[in-house]
Amino acid sequence: MLPAFAGLARLASMGALATQTVDTTKRLEALRSLMSSSEHNVTAMVIPSEDQHMSEYIAACDERRAYISGFNGSAGTVIVTLKDAFLFTDGRYFLQAEKQLDSNWTLMKSGLPDVPTWQEFLSKNLEKHSRIGIDPTLITAADAESLETSLKAKESHLVSLTDNLVDFIWEDRPPRPANKVFPLDVKYSGESHQDKLKRLREELNKKPYKAMVVNMLDEVAWLFNLRGSDIDFNPVFFAYAVVTHDNSLLFVNTSQVDDVVRTHLGDPVQIKPYDEFFPYLRGLGGEVDLSDELQVLVGDKCNLAIVEAIGRERITILRSPIADFKAIKNETEIEGFRQCHIRDGAALTRYFAWLEEQLNSGTQLNESQAADKLEEFRSELDLFRGLSFTTISSTGPNGAVIHYSPDPADCSIIQKEQIYLCDSGAQFLDGTTDVTRTWHFGNPTDEEKRAFTRVLQGHIAIDTAIFPNGTTGYIIDSWARRPLWEDGLDYRHGTGHGVGHFLNVHEGPQGIGVRIAYNSTALKSGMTVSNEPGYYADGRFGIRIENIVIVRDAQTPNNFGNKGYLKFEHVTLSPIHKKLIDASLLTAAERSWLDAYHAEVLDKVSPLLKNDTRALAWLERECSPL
Amino acid sequence: MLPAFAGLARLASMGALATQTVDTTKRLEALRSLMSSSEHNVTAMVIPSEDQHMSEYIAACDERRAYISGFNGSAGTVIVTLKDAFLFTDGRYFLQAEKQLDSNWTLMKSGLPDVPTWQEFLSKNLEKHSRIGIDPTLITAADAESLETSLKAKESHLVSLTDNLVDFIWEDRPPRPANKVFPLDVKYSGESHQDKLKRLREELNKKPYKAMVVNMLDEVAWLFNLRGSDIDFNPVFFAYAVVTHDNSLLFVNTSQVDDVVRTHLGDPVQIKPYDEFFPYLRGLGGEVDLSDELQVLVGDKCNLAIVEAIGRERITILRSPIADFKAIKNETEIEGFRQCHIRDGAALTRYFAWLEEQLNSGTQLNESQAADKLEEFRSELDLFRGLSFTTISSTGPNGAVIHYSPDPADCSIIQKEQIYLCDSGAQFLDGTTDVTRTWHFGNPTDEEKRAFTRVLQGHIAIDTAIFPNGTTGYIIDSWARRPLWEDGLDYRHGTGHGVGHFLNVHEGPQGIGVRIAYNSTALKSGMTVSNEPGYYADGRFGIRIENIVIVRDAQTPNNFGNKGYLKFEHVTLSPIHKKLIDASLLTAAERSWLDAYHAEVLDKVSPLLKNDTRALAWLERECSPL
Repeated sequence: MLPAFAGLARLASMGALATQTVDTTKRLEALRSLMSSSEHNVTAMVIPSEDQHMSEYIAACDERRAYISGFNGSAGTVIVTLKDAFLFTDGRYFLQAEKQLDSNWTLMKSGLPDVPTWQEFLSKNLEKHSRIGIDPTLITAADAESLETSLKAKESHLVSLTDNLVDFIWEDRPPRPANKVFPLDVKYSGESHQDKLKRLREELNKKPYKAMVVNMLDEVAWLFNLRGSDIDFNPVFFAYAVVTHDNSLLFVNTSQVDDVVRTHLGDPVQIKPYDEFFPYLRGLGGEVDLSDELQVLVGDKCNLAIVEAIGRERITILRSPIADFKAIKNETEIEGFRQCHIRDGAALTRYFAWLEEQLNSGTQLNESQAADKLEEFRSELDLFRGLSFTTISSTGPNGAVIHYSPDPADCSIIQKEQIYLCDSGAQFLDGTTDVTRTWHFGNPTDEEKRAFTRVLQGHIAIDTAIFPNGTTGYIIDSWARRPLWEDGLDYRHGTGHGVGHFLNVHEGPQGIGVRIAYNSTALKSGMTVSNEPGYYADGRFGIRIENIVIVRDAQTPNNFGNKGYLKFEHVTLSPIHKKLIDASLLTAAERSWLDAYHAEVLDKVSPLLKNDTRALAWLERECSPL
Repeated sequence: MLPAFAGLARLASMGALATQTVDTTKRLEALRSLMSSSEHNVTAMVIPSEDQHMSEYIAACDERRAYISGFNGSAGTVIVTLKDAFLFTDGRYFLQAEKQLDSNWTLMKSGLPDVPTWQEFLSKNLEKHSRIGIDPTLITAADAESLETSLKAKESHLVSLTDNLVDFIWEDRPPRPANKVFPLDVKYSGESHQDKLKRLREELNKKPYKAMVVNMLDEVAWLFNLRGSDIDFNPVFFAYAVVTHDNSLLFVNTSQVDDVVRTHLGDPVQIKPYDEFFPYLRGLGGEVDLSDELQVLVGDKCNLAIVEAIGRERITILRSPIADFKAIKNETEIEGFRQCHIRDGAALTRYFAWLEEQLNSGTQLNESQAADKLEEFRSELDLFRGLSFTTISSTGPNGAVIHYSPDPADCSIIQKEQIYLCDSGAQFLDGTTDVTRTWHFGNPTDEEKRAFTRVLQGHIAIDTAIFPNGTTGYIIDSWARRPLWEDGLDYRHGTGHGVGHFLNVHEGPQGIGVRIAYNSTALKSGMTVSNEPGYYADGRFGIRIENIVIVRDAQTPNNFGNKGYLKFEHVTLSPIHKKLIDASLLTAAERSWLDAYHAEVLDKVSPLLKNDTRALAWLERECSPL
């Protein structure tokens, strides 16, 4: 799955499909009345949007943005003043926003020349002395600080609103999900939460810090070996945690926690009501003695509300040590990744074999119906716990829309004579999958075959990479692009993102791509990352080939510089469509790679297909040597 | 030639060879007496070292450092306090510095754990309220600013010394060279200086700026189509220039300039005595009206003295537009590069054929004698104007010393059974060459062949690169390393540096390498860059294969994103040693590349070898298909 894309099923289920429009007049009136009340007294309000941010943030921002504006795309920033209302969104959503916004709204097309960023807009276009209201749980302290700096030019200020004003006016707002939390057995996690807490405390001792406050939902889930289902596709639950040298506190809606969880956590972890988190922080801040430098550690995605509760001068903001721990999978997690990918490969095989048969027999099938069938096959697998993101099931031109997902009520019929791109994944107790395959069930053109082969060559270049410790995903990204560049082709997304272990399918801090941030994190043994080069011909077709790979130590004949060298182990097991390959472009080594990969797929997946002769026959055919 | 290495022949010729020691007691006494005089009143003095800095700077710092410390390596920073004396240098020079420094000196081994940088040392280890003397012509304004900031912690200050104190005590200091300046005909430069000045003025009009001050010697030479010989290997001359909207002023020792130069420059350029430069700047600064924002533009390597003369608030420091102009060669310069590389290839052929014969016949030949023979062959070539750097002629273990150059008085005999690495280049009126070839005149080991082949594969990966506009040398550097990494090998230098046109063999701002600075300059059509991956087995052998390549527009079948795609054209023409190739490692495409390259070398170089049957026979043999 491509970076920056998750969790909107809930939003869609709230009723605002891409083609519907909401009249926002009354909602805006109510909001402005609250804004100008003496209690709040703000002249503008912002609901910002950030990619790959705090999980809670994404869900909460998206919902409120959709409620107040009517636009329900997955990215966009809302600015409401006492007179006007603006939505900032990027090229992926221009069409959708134009459809969904009513006349109260002005669409700001981010990325076009002369269109300011929303931060520039706040600091340049708003009147002097503006008071800009913001929910401090929905912006990182770092972003708020840099925004506050740029607001100085007009002597404007950010105003933290203790309560979110949209929530006040939203009468029938669906309650925050509060689903059951459950423990993840150490046979899946590979490390007890006691041991994880011990490692974290060793980190606290280094400076030393007084405590660490954890606000990223996947970090809380990882740390305590707990999972939930409060956010679609991401098996996390709403919670905060604080770890001191003597205590571990988990702030969670206590209705979500039963005796199984309490027994799992044991005495060393205190469960506290979710609502007591901020009052507790204010007390913790009060305990920090500024003279002894024992500050409170927070991760760099810490929200502004936490910083304000403890006090900025009592806090050290660093890259989260938990994110770094979590990024490196232990041997149990790695084995889980291997095993769940074998099972996932079986479901994919059954699906693609079924789909081919349907299309060959002339069945009319739309993209969403097909995706449902894939989910059905997956749901029969052991340890299955849901999808890891909305399936991208796309025919022809839809495959070129990078963040496409089919609208069940209005999507295309899959065409046999067009390329079909399917990007999908699942959550299992033992790991998370994310795989893209591209098929042609009819007769591909030479152009399609050449482009597919270039993408495949880029994919193989990453799969077979060997590089010294210290190398980042920024450095090797161009290996995936080289075969495409040779033909004057390219793709406008990253090559790979980190993947959680039965956690968010997008996980930092590592990644392979052109974003300079990826140059700050060296790839390390045990990290998981996707390998997904692609090519997109606007209005015609899309190609992507995606496997999940794990960084492992490489046994090289030499070890220059004593750095140790690394390689990738792929865990995704699904054939790569030979019909789309122009074999004349492949080197002998690339050809051998493909045949060996297919032999491995057949060897590992076929034992799970004893009851599906159609799938087994299909797999044998697709895995035969090129 | 590898980055950060030039122009020390003059230093060597001053008498202090790597094995000699100088007693610095009296020199230090004299210096300290000046330091503590009421006129200067400084408690410490620094002579900093920087790689790839202002040309004048390098020569001047190196000489003064050598005089005061006895150490004559090409990199090192000297700090003298009233009691102590420190030399900071890096791993390349630890042995040499230990030999050359007397007991007055403490060697600070830069790069080792717990050894501070010289900047850290000044701001942390010196006493509070230190006054640190520095010659402001020998540090960039940017470096001085950041140093001044870090000195604040101890309330210390930099003190600009109008005269360099080392010069005061150095009685028999060789005078600054003042060799004849000469015009470079437009048939070689491809663009008149009038047109270059016009382009620069268009740049000045953009903001607009009042004037640009030029202090980089190669920028002055390029701008006026003049050349000189004041610095070994670099055909430049000591000068400063100022370009305003109406005037062009060239500050140069007038004894270096004759009527030919005056006629070439014509009326629009005023020649002024070198010593009038700083007084002129003070007047120019006085003319700047702070209210109208017409500031003076200087390049980012502008020295502190210029900034102090004009006034910091009257100056804009930017990446030099002249450096950016100069980096992109015009079609005349490109054709000159092609032509001089053909001639250079003939001299190389004659040399390698001669060397092989000498070694086969058992002649005892040391590295320096061999280098002299190569220079002799080169000096017979049309338009030859000297070497472009000291020839690296190295046998066996010396080849693994990356910045080795043979000491004529004390160097190794070339061994037939060891790898011979030769990195050399020349200056011609029509271009500059820089080429490395690695040979084995006996029987190479499997290890040597495998390593050589990996280096060759890296070289081919760069040579055949195709990439979109906007791509930097930082991004493609890993393409050269990939084949080495596969074997757990690597090299600790960049892959390529920019190359001047009959100018400095190292020229910025572009380059291919792991230095993040290379990520700030996209490779553009017309840029020249070296392609020189290598491998070094400490104490045993070194391998490097270096060609100069020119960035050119590529004709790709597609043009995704309308960016335009680029490729490299190699201009260096010298066979790559087939005996050192393990052909089983090569792909079919790599094999074809090699055969095609050799056919091209033979085709272009052989017509120049009609009078040297030995060389012609050798070339035919070395250029036969693999």
